[in-house]
Amino acid sequence: MNFAHSEKCQDYLTRVRQFMNEHVIPNEAEILAEVRRLNPTGDWTTWQVPEQMKSLKAKAKAQGLWNLFLPDEEFGQGLTCVDYAPLAEEMGRSLIAPDLFNCNAPDTGNMEVLYHFGSNEQKAKWLQPLLDGEIRSVFGMTEPEVASSDATNMQATISLDGDEVIVNGRKWWSTGLGHPDAKMTVFMGLSNPDADKHQRHAMVIVPLDAQGVKIDRMLTAFGDYDAPYGHGEMTLTNVRVPKENVIWDLGKGFAIAQGRLGPGRIHHCMRAIGAAERALQLAIERGHHRVAFGKSIIKLGGNLERVAKARMQIDQARLLTLNAAWKIDNLGVKQAMTEISAIKVVVPNMLQEVVDMAIQLHGGAGMCHDFPLAGFAAMARSLRLADGPDEVHMAMVSRLELKKYQ
Amino acid sequence: MNFAHSEKCQDYLTRVRQFMNEHVIPNEAEILAEVRRLNPTGDWTTWQVPEQMKSLKAKAKAQGLWNLFLPDEEFGQGLTCVDYAPLAEEMGRSLIAPDLFNCNAPDTGNMEVLYHFGSNEQKAKWLQPLLDGEIRSVFGMTEPEVASSDATNMQATISLDGDEVIVNGRKWWSTGLGHPDAKMTVFMGLSNPDADKHQRHAMVIVPLDAQGVKIDRMLTAFGDYDAPYGHGEMTLTNVRVPKENVIWDLGKGFAIAQGRLGPGRIHHCMRAIGAAERALQLAIERGHHRVAFGKSIIKLGGNLERVAKARMQIDQARLLTLNAAWKIDNLGVKQAMTEISAIKVVVPNMLQEVVDMAIQLHGGAGMCHDFPLAGFAAMARSLRLADGPDEVHMAMVSRLELKKYQ
Amino acid sequence: MNFAHSEKCQDYLTRVRQFMNEHVIPNEAEILAEVRRLNPTGDWTTWQVPEQMKSLKAKAKAQGLWNLFLPDEEFGQGLTCVDYAPLAEEMGRSLIAPDLFNCNAPDTGNMEVLYHFGSNEQKAKWLQPLLDGEIRSVFGMTEPEVASSDATNMQATISLDGDEVIVNGRKWWSTGLGHPDAKMTVFMGLSNPDADKHQRHAMVIVPLDAQGVKIDRMLTAFGDYDAPYGHGEMTLTNVRVPKENVIWDLGKGFAIAQGRLGPGRIHHCMRAIGAAERALQLAIERGHHRVAFGKSIIKLGGNLERVAKARMQIDQARLLTLNAAWKIDNLGVKQAMTEISAIKVVVPNMLQEVVDMAIQLHGGAGMCHDFPLAGFAAMARSLRLADGPDEVHMAMVSRLELKKYQ
Amino acid sequence: MNFAHSEKCQDYLTRVRQFMNEHVIPNEAEILAEVRRLNPTGDWTTWQVPEQMKSLKAKAKAQGLWNLFLPDEEFGQGLTCVDYAPLAEEMGRSLIAPDLFNCNAPDTGNMEVLYHFGSNEQKAKWLQPLLDGEIRSVFGMTEPEVASSDATNMQATISLDGDEVIVNGRKWWSTGLGHPDAKMTVFMGLSNPDADKHQRHAMVIVPLDAQGVKIDRMLTAFGDYDAPYGHGEMTLTNVRVPKENVIWDLGKGFAIAQGRLGPGRIHHCMRAIGAAERALQLAIERGHHRVAFGKSIIKLGGNLERVAKARMQIDQARLLTLNAAWKIDNLGVKQAMTEISAIKVVVPNMLQEVVDMAIQLHGGAGMCHDFPLAGFAAMARSLRLADGPDEVHMAMVSRLELKKYQ
Repeated sequence: MNFAHSEKCQDYLTRVRQFMNEHVIPNEAEILAEVRRLNPTGDWTTWQVPEQMKSLKAKAKAQGLWNLFLPDEEFGQGLTCVDYAPLAEEMGRSLIAPDLFNCNAPDTGNMEVLYHFGSNEQKAKWLQPLLDGEIRSVFGMTEPEVASSDATNMQATISLDGDEVIVNGRKWWSTGLGHPDAKMTVFMGLSNPDADKHQRHAMVIVPLDAQGVKIDRMLTAFGDYDAPYGHGEMTLTNVRVPKENVIWDLGKGFAIAQGRLGPGRIHHCMRAIGAAERALQLAIERGHHRVAFGKSIIKLGGNLERVAKARMQIDQARLLTLNAAWKIDNLGVKQAMTEISAIKVVVPNMLQEVVDMAIQLHGGAGMCHDFPLAGFAAMARSLRLADGPDEVHMAMVSRLELKKYQ
Repeated sequence: MNFAHSEKCQDYLTRVRQFMNEHVIPNEAEILAEVRRLNPTGDWTTWQVPEQMKSLKAKAKAQGLWNLFLPDEEFGQGLTCVDYAPLAEEMGRSLIAPDLFNCNAPDTGNMEVLYHFGSNEQKAKWLQPLLDGEIRSVFGMTEPEVASSDATNMQATISLDGDEVIVNGRKWWSTGLGHPDAKMTVFMGLSNPDADKHQRHAMVIVPLDAQGVKIDRMLTAFGDYDAPYGHGEMTLTNVRVPKENVIWDLGKGFAIAQGRLGPGRIHHCMRAIGAAERALQLAIERGHHRVAFGKSIIKLGGNLERVAKARMQIDQARLLTLNAAWKIDNLGVKQAMTEISAIKVVVPNMLQEVVDMAIQLHGGAGMCHDFPLAGFAAMARSLRLADGPDEVHMAMVSRLELKKYQ
Repeated sequence: MNFAHSEKCQDYLTRVRQFMNEHVIPNEAEILAEVRRLNPTGDWTTWQVPEQMKSLKAKAKAQGLWNLFLPDEEFGQGLTCVDYAPLAEEMGRSLIAPDLFNCNAPDTGNMEVLYHFGSNEQKAKWLQPLLDGEIRSVFGMTEPEVASSDATNMQATISLDGDEVIVNGRKWWSTGLGHPDAKMTVFMGLSNPDADKHQRHAMVIVPLDAQGVKIDRMLTAFGDYDAPYGHGEMTLTNVRVPKENVIWDLGKGFAIAQGRLGPGRIHHCMRAIGAAERALQLAIERGHHRVAFGKSIIKLGGNLERVAKARMQIDQARLLTLNAAWKIDNLGVKQAMTEISAIKVVVPNMLQEVVDMAIQLHGGAGMCHDFPLAGFAAMARSLRLADGPDEVHMAMVSRLELKKYQ
Repeated sequence: MNFAHSEKCQDYLTRVRQFMNEHVIPNEAEILAEVRRLNPTGDWTTWQVPEQMKSLKAKAKAQGLWNLFLPDEEFGQGLTCVDYAPLAEEMGRSLIAPDLFNCNAPDTGNMEVLYHFGSNEQKAKWLQPLLDGEIRSVFGMTEPEVASSDATNMQATISLDGDEVIVNGRKWWSTGLGHPDAKMTVFMGLSNPDADKHQRHAMVIVPLDAQGVKIDRMLTAFGDYDAPYGHGEMTLTNVRVPKENVIWDLGKGFAIAQGRLGPGRIHHCMRAIGAAERALQLAIERGHHRVAFGKSIIKLGGNLERVAKARMQIDQARLLTLNAAWKIDNLGVKQAMTEISAIKVVVPNMLQEVVDMAIQLHGGAGMCHDFPLAGFAAMARSLRLADGPDEVHMAMVSRLELKKYQ
């Protein structure tokens, strides 16, 4: 295992950090206030993106701090998973940052899918504008009517009908569905119901303006609509798209999901680690300046031990994630199944604990929009469910562990 | 210790439970949706109370399920702390319920203060309409500029000037400040800055329409404005009120706070226990009906152990709270300081854990408004800060513990 | 629920506490040193009881502080479960104390079994000398070859053969088997292998000097043989005893075990609570007197919060246990199944945590025989396995919880 | 960071693993039984080393699996900290193994001290026989009368008197003091009481047969004397040794301790990780073969999640330790202070949890000598105190963390 920063990584890291420190962190509060001003309600049809976000995004693009997640030299910046990891951590320090670098979920995952499995036409029509940051996309996976932790429960269907496929189903928690630039969804459904369990599904590209696509509502995640992105619920009723919109082939849904899996985990875990570092920093700074009972509150009771515990948890979580990234880069996703599941459990739980501690040190201030902590808390809590709950990943880790002794 | 339900308590409990089961739980989702429809933004000046809440409130009043928290036979229903505890638990099962029975914070605390320490005029002018449910009140304690966990940090001032007092200061996290019926705040500030540490403060009644009172904004608590109540920030600038508005006397602020303390803790802890019971019930029901990997998800992995752990935590928390209530009733608040601090730590943390588990079992559904769980999570998290953070209360418990061996 | 001390309980409590403070605590270290001096190895055939223990036992008996656990007015002292609970807690403060009051396991359980289910002959021959403290007994339940957490795994057999039963089987963790006064074992085995699952077993009295009884060895429990009691392994090979030695009847083993269950749990849980109080006291005292980095160590880092946490955990555990005791007294064991399982999980885990904290505050001293803490730690850890592991009891609690919603 | 195994490391790892699998693990139970047979009591004057241990030690030496901890090419095997780490983990799988490879504490630490700071004479007289495995040594640091977590509390004295130093003081928890081959102690005491806080102490070599050295007793660590090593208490009264026995110089005690610090942490943490791996393996194997309620117990309740949690904790702890080792190798101990303190907290706590889980899965068997688990539990618990309690190291981590923001 070698987690050292390559020269290339170090160069990008320096530049991303500078961008964060100069442009993002100092303006974060103002931008978030503008987001709330522009998007005061859950009515996504009125949502807008603040001008300042647009201009920062243009600036990042102009500086080449763009699509850093994609290992391809041409489409992305040629960074490995291990190279990208510290950049993702850096971006994770602010909830508004990943989008500015065109490195936000679920677009990153969708771009990876199109990059690896898309046809040339699909690449031209959808991948390129996504890479250019001109449109946004969503991912239709989780369904409200079934326990989606078991993907074989999926009820949506993708049926071949001549030159078209007919798509039906209801999905929710499709992040980004409320964004003004959201133009398409990668949508997963049953295409070959009689095939083997892992060859029954397909992924298809559905333009959001296709007939039969209805956005039902945006969902609150712990009280927040997360405008201008949103987490949406949508119903597709007899939506017809050309069969060329199927990615790879019918029956390949699971295979694609598998491939999409590993790097995406690294991304969101590293972002979570960045969020945890930010929360710890805020806790220490607040704890220094506030005084109670004659002392800085950071020195009261068990607070210093909490700081130490946070440092130890964060460092362990980072090393675990870098190790997973290294395995993906060097051995492939299939040799990193334990690690990819392990970080999915460890990192969001770590973030949840660290942020909870930071909120406690902030008192009431930690609960409201004056600090990014409540947002981090919602992020941590969501990540423990998104992409499979903790329990599913622990089951995977233990299954692989038991195999060693059989 | 005798925690048995008295006959009177049992009678009220049966009736409150029936009211909850018939009127509150079945209509909760609809009422909460109406709350959101009527109050779509953080602009509290437009907030409204749904008609259905008003009519349920009238119904509870008509049935005598009203002011149950107040031990007085005439003003309340003559129930002891131990008697009221199971009623508070029952109400706690829904976030909308306490208000329906005129048993919601901070009005209960304010009514207790006026009942115990108010002048006859204050009682006539403010206590009576509060008891009648005609107006609502807030409590101005926490300040944004200092660590309010140490009450001696308080900066607001209440200065005698002839027949008036002049009130200055900024307060936040004043719950209920956004409510259309909110008419006054009990406001705490420095009145005798040179007196002994615990005799420096006063509480004064300030009508919200007094000149110089400015409501700055409502705060989000984990993304939610909690309309139509709200948690507000207000600035009082040279507000003049008659000195008759001072409660008890100048310098008595801490003494009043002390008296206000004990029963209020029992109330919110028992409500939190009710919330935990509801969360556990929801978790079990959801876990029964959802199937993954060929099993009800309640039977997967460690879920059944989580159910057992929740049951054991809830039962312990309830007994601890009942014991505190018994001590308050029978020995007085001063003999129950360990217990009153202990429940403040134990119960909200228990609720936070139980709700977290319930959310995990609900998947995405647990995060959004489709279930009351995200609301309970915010409640639990807030309660770990409100009325003093965990750490302050642990410091109190350990101080009393060490005294035993000196 | 009424956990108030009855007058009778209060009287005994005063006397037991006085006995503990005058005779037990001050002599504990000396007695334990003598125990180690007399019994330096694991060779139980040479084990002896210190004279000081014998004389203290006589003194307790003379003072009527004797067989307090048995509710019967004649055989015991007529104390209910709720009455006895605080006495057991008091005794639990020292590992050597329960025996001094003839209130030690497994003799208490065996006496209860004989009291409730024994024939007059069995009572005369075995119960009376046990009540008199003249002999000691063991209980043969757990078997080395199977997972004894599932009692239906039991392999030992008790076969009727004319006027005798033939007993075969291997048992271990039979506490007290190494004691010089141990004279008999209550032994459980399969008697009716074709009957319904819970009617297949019997309990039979086997004198330890019967032909075919072989004591194989004493086991260390976390390094300690617990002389002069010991935890033994024994093999019974074609041991013949008169069928009059069967308790109640063949097939009644489970029914007897069920009856033996509840009060025994209260006893050992309350003792564990007493041990936890002692550990907390020792931690505070040590923490006061030792100084590091210029402060009493009790005031360093998170130590005061640990004290508070211990206080809160102990108080909750005690209330949970008293509540279980009250239910056993007033509603019967069958109505207290959740509670009896819950305390089995909660209390030993609480003790383990509290003792671990106390050891940490003692540094090296906490690990060795200079303090009773290592002994308490072994006790706590053992209790999480004895009488069914945590997991079995959590399964019971969750099963009962799920039933509420079916 | 590059944690990859070098070729040299991989070669040694293969050979150590083979030695463990062929010679150590299969004979462990027999050797431990022989240890107990030979050393039945706490009387260390009679303790003996089993012949089988001696011959295995000779075999390891003959194979060059010897002094692997020492980076020096000539005295040791030229392995870096990162190289040695996986070897230490491998050895940690059995409590008897480190000694067989001459890699056991405290001899390793003492050899490092002599290697780095010893005079040529000291090296000839003491280092060489230690490297040859002919003698054993102890370390006199912790004192019974003061809180030794604060080293400035130390009361022992080392006073220059002409060509000699006079050594006085009482030490305990000197591991290995009971061993038949123990010949000397490195002893720390106040030499320059008026100097700066970290220049007041010295370390001196005291032969155990010097006049005035009295071994008072061996201490039990959680019930076990850990024969034939032991944890001893010794009193030195006016012991005179030539001043040439002082290591480096008077006043250099802290500087030496600092240097001794880092690698020793890596060693014991990696051994603890090996112990955790062994415990997890035993838990899985036992859990597979034992059946209860119709299932392998590993599949009951939350057990599989416990396996997953153990895997995730162990992997994180290992990466954290390797990272610390890498920093020591590449940046030096002073640049690795956070990491060296962090592993001291994280790893023993991890081991304690994993072993506790493994014991729980073993039932009674886990508590006694039939499995190495109780030994691992005592090791884990001791490590949380040895070499500074958790709390001291958390204080160090938080202090360094706070410095980042000042």
